[in-house]
Amino acid sequence: MFQSFEVTARPEQGPPRLQALRAAMAQSGLDAFIVPRADAHQGEYVAPHDERLAWLTGFTGSAGFAVVTQSRAAVFVDGRYRVQVRAQVADVFEPVDWPETSLDAWLKDAMPKGVVGYDPWLHTPREIRQLVAAGIELKAVRNPVDAIWDDQPAPPVGRVISQPDALAGRSSAEKRGGLAEELRAAGCTACVITLPDSLSWLLNIRGEDIPRNPVVHGMTILHDTGDVDLFIDAAKLADVDLGAGVTLHAPDAFIPACAALTGLVMADPDTAPQAVFDVLSDVHEARDPCLLPKACKTEAEISGARTAHLRDAVAMVHFLHWLETHAPGDLTEIDVATKLEGFRRETNQLRDISFETISGAGPHAALPHYRVTKDSNRALKEGEVYLVDSGGQYQDGTTDITRTIGIGPQADHVRRAFTRVLQGMIGISRLRFPPGISGADIDSVARVALWAAGQDYAHGTGHGVGAYLSVHEGPQRLARTGREPLQKGMILSNEPGFYAEGEFGIRIENLIVVEPAPRQPDQSLPELLQFETLTFVPIDRHMIEREMLTAPEREWMNSYHADCLEKLSPHVTGDVAEWLRAACAPL
Amino acid sequence: MFQSFEVTARPEQGPPRLQALRAAMAQSGLDAFIVPRADAHQGEYVAPHDERLAWLTGFTGSAGFAVVTQSRAAVFVDGRYRVQVRAQVADVFEPVDWPETSLDAWLKDAMPKGVVGYDPWLHTPREIRQLVAAGIELKAVRNPVDAIWDDQPAPPVGRVISQPDALAGRSSAEKRGGLAEELRAAGCTACVITLPDSLSWLLNIRGEDIPRNPVVHGMTILHDTGDVDLFIDAAKLADVDLGAGVTLHAPDAFIPACAALTGLVMADPDTAPQAVFDVLSDVHEARDPCLLPKACKTEAEISGARTAHLRDAVAMVHFLHWLETHAPGDLTEIDVATKLEGFRRETNQLRDISFETISGAGPHAALPHYRVTKDSNRALKEGEVYLVDSGGQYQDGTTDITRTIGIGPQADHVRRAFTRVLQGMIGISRLRFPPGISGADIDSVARVALWAAGQDYAHGTGHGVGAYLSVHEGPQRLARTGREPLQKGMILSNEPGFYAEGEFGIRIENLIVVEPAPRQPDQSLPELLQFETLTFVPIDRHMIEREMLTAPEREWMNSYHADCLEKLSPHVTGDVAEWLRAACAPL
Repeated sequence: MFQSFEVTARPEQGPPRLQALRAAMAQSGLDAFIVPRADAHQGEYVAPHDERLAWLTGFTGSAGFAVVTQSRAAVFVDGRYRVQVRAQVADVFEPVDWPETSLDAWLKDAMPKGVVGYDPWLHTPREIRQLVAAGIELKAVRNPVDAIWDDQPAPPVGRVISQPDALAGRSSAEKRGGLAEELRAAGCTACVITLPDSLSWLLNIRGEDIPRNPVVHGMTILHDTGDVDLFIDAAKLADVDLGAGVTLHAPDAFIPACAALTGLVMADPDTAPQAVFDVLSDVHEARDPCLLPKACKTEAEISGARTAHLRDAVAMVHFLHWLETHAPGDLTEIDVATKLEGFRRETNQLRDISFETISGAGPHAALPHYRVTKDSNRALKEGEVYLVDSGGQYQDGTTDITRTIGIGPQADHVRRAFTRVLQGMIGISRLRFPPGISGADIDSVARVALWAAGQDYAHGTGHGVGAYLSVHEGPQRLARTGREPLQKGMILSNEPGFYAEGEFGIRIENLIVVEPAPRQPDQSLPELLQFETLTFVPIDRHMIEREMLTAPEREWMNSYHADCLEKLSPHVTGDVAEWLRAACAPL
Repeated sequence: MFQSFEVTARPEQGPPRLQALRAAMAQSGLDAFIVPRADAHQGEYVAPHDERLAWLTGFTGSAGFAVVTQSRAAVFVDGRYRVQVRAQVADVFEPVDWPETSLDAWLKDAMPKGVVGYDPWLHTPREIRQLVAAGIELKAVRNPVDAIWDDQPAPPVGRVISQPDALAGRSSAEKRGGLAEELRAAGCTACVITLPDSLSWLLNIRGEDIPRNPVVHGMTILHDTGDVDLFIDAAKLADVDLGAGVTLHAPDAFIPACAALTGLVMADPDTAPQAVFDVLSDVHEARDPCLLPKACKTEAEISGARTAHLRDAVAMVHFLHWLETHAPGDLTEIDVATKLEGFRRETNQLRDISFETISGAGPHAALPHYRVTKDSNRALKEGEVYLVDSGGQYQDGTTDITRTIGIGPQADHVRRAFTRVLQGMIGISRLRFPPGISGADIDSVARVALWAAGQDYAHGTGHGVGAYLSVHEGPQRLARTGREPLQKGMILSNEPGFYAEGEFGIRIENLIVVEPAPRQPDQSLPELLQFETLTFVPIDRHMIEREMLTAPEREWMNSYHADCLEKLSPHVTGDVAEWLRAACAPL
């Protein structure tokens, strides 16, 4: 099923639903209730079953939460969604700027005294503690939205498939054995794992429970023996054999099983639901132990990523050739995004796109998180830029690439901005660095050229990326908030940008993977790391102001294009091959 | 008085003093006692009165502490002092690697149970809380070292002079008025200020209580009226009129005055002594409010800094000319450091050197904190590098400069390392950046060239510098730990380096000051900052591998040398002028 560009918000449904919720709250003795856009697994995407925020308010953004009192109702959204929320919700809801206004501050203003209900499955202990510390009186309840939502979809029962050991690089037994050793070292008898990425990684399985992320929804208890209790709808597992050491249970058995655990139990207060913490008697709070080993890809996963990126690049090159020969014509953002998905599907190996394609023409390119709908859909125009940020889920790897294309000749200041963004992207690509360095330490390297011109971008330089898992994955990040030391095997995006509101936007994104650097002639550090580039798709040469690049930057650019030509040539023919040669010519 | 290079440690005095201390501890019911190298003002330098650590152990380093139990005694030192401590202390003391081994861990091993005494004047609440949290049983006592130290020097009574308003840029009354407003905004009636830099800045005074830092030792209570109670030996104040609003008290009156304060009192748990916190009844814990305004220099202070740096540069140029015409000869590190101090004294305006000159030849240059003594003194040798890190205290400004000079021809790998360090120094010098950016965000910019070659340096890139105050000043820092946003007027050092142990060392250091950047043609950020360079002294051209520099780096280098020539030419004649012209020739 191709990406849908329908407008799904129905603001007029908000008021009656809000009224029903208030009645349900009153019955439960609640003065307020919090409705987050979250499920028990704290992922970026939620299943239709968990789209409570959208159902109640009409707001469909990927982050936010509502708070309802008997007299007021607010929808909290961050900078990305300030315009969208106003279009999507009825005026019974006040849009609130978050994090500028905190939940507790708003509550204290809206309702100086009273009991605030929350669903303990949808909040982490970290969130709950912050509210408690702020003096909010909280009460855990069964979700009243579920009680009034008559046609609430059932929880997803996506088919589970196994991720072959040959692609994962390590068997599930090996992974579980390694973590069991860590548990014993920490004096723990077991660990509760609630993140679907972690579960999917740990058991070498993938699923279809939510769009775009091939994760499996389920709950897991990992014992210090390496054995696992998996709480999941058995119907999902028809096609997969989980092997020895994995015992299946119904989802309902999860909380009783947590309550029955003895000894010290590891659990992550930043990702596990409060409902789990409520029943654990002796908790060792620690980060989900799957996060770091999952982030450090195996050789097999990196090799798979190279193959997936090459396949994806061939689709991208066909797409870019098509775009150059057809744009602007009467093409719209939706036409172009659909065409690109088509090229990816033609590989016959696309499992899903890895996120909703960002397809922005002209001023829409200036919205870093723009998602085109039939309402916003804009025609491509000669003289404007077109920005496309997209990716694919393949069994051997997850891709994510942004290219910004000049549709016809571009103004000089647009090309200068493009060149500076490129300089930032090259700066990260060329970097070598010692172990211990985190994304926060090097984020500025991508900004130096923009800063010199008084320009910048209001997002991080890059995010972690999974191996046929979520396209946004922690703990690695290239950003001022990214304090996790970069280690061999971590895949990240490298995507500086520049956004001139109402005018144009630039972003150039490759995926990169941390690898040991070859020994340098004057090297004194015992170890040195660098980035291997995974993405090989030409960067629009017409947008580059050659004279602004330093000699080493020009060398990098030419060598990158030579690599693109060498890697992609065997996979393209005719006009596309000719286009590729021209697109990869030295500057 | 010129810098002394005497070796002051007398290890043989340690054992009898340790024995006397243990006897005093036993009398006071203490099982252990902590002896930090600190005074009540937590400065980098302490007066002879407070050199308890050196007196007891023989260790003369600028950081460290001893812990004494009835059966063991340890001296904790960081990486800089691991060799030195072994040479300076008798074997009754165990050297301990700090922070690898924490005080509480060592105590738990040495003495599983018992009362640990400490002098509440020499520790901050932050330190004490950490020990308490680690389960150490503490007892505040009168310092038993003072009780057994018969010839302990008296506290310093350095003469206080006023720092003219014309140099300070703001009168003391103005500063106090501004802070009083902050106190009122925070709901505080008063603030206790114990840092001598803060006191000296606040009252526009300077002193002679400790070497190298022209600060005044005293304690201060600032009231929300802007009035100040100053607790100080009145003998120091013979030459100065502090004007209205400042009331003098004897030092002994300080604690009773703190105890008598009513209302909420601001105090800094990271810098004030525990002894102060012990008597305050209602504390608002906050950073010393002088720190930030002191760090952001006034126009008058920046103008003074330019003048002081020009004067200092003229001395440096005479010195570098002298060095080139005399080295190596039979010159030693001490000869050269003494000669340099002589050139600074010839300005007739040197109040003091701003720290002990680091004068390192050959392998000694590889010790970033090397301090030459008569024992370590090394001859300069043809073919080796010579590194000199030094500075002056002038009434209009504090200087700090490092130059690394090739004595005769240098090996290619040494010149390559020099060039990479220079590239880092240039990277910071050329940077523009938005408000909000801190030193931690940009520290890596100074390392990119070294990292590319597998090299690095194990110190920060720069420290804050005072205005005729301490040469090491916070809160601004160019380092991974520097989280304070850089603001207009902050003076910092920019001093990347490279150290090949046992072989050679490189460091190049200029001082820089944050200033608004001129508006750029494509600028979209509302504000932009950059660094103005304060130090104008040629950088050894023979050490630079021209081909490694990018075109913009070469331009910066040539333009810097052109500026040096233009600024310094009017102040030098004859051979020195000729030398300067050659030293500033374009690459």
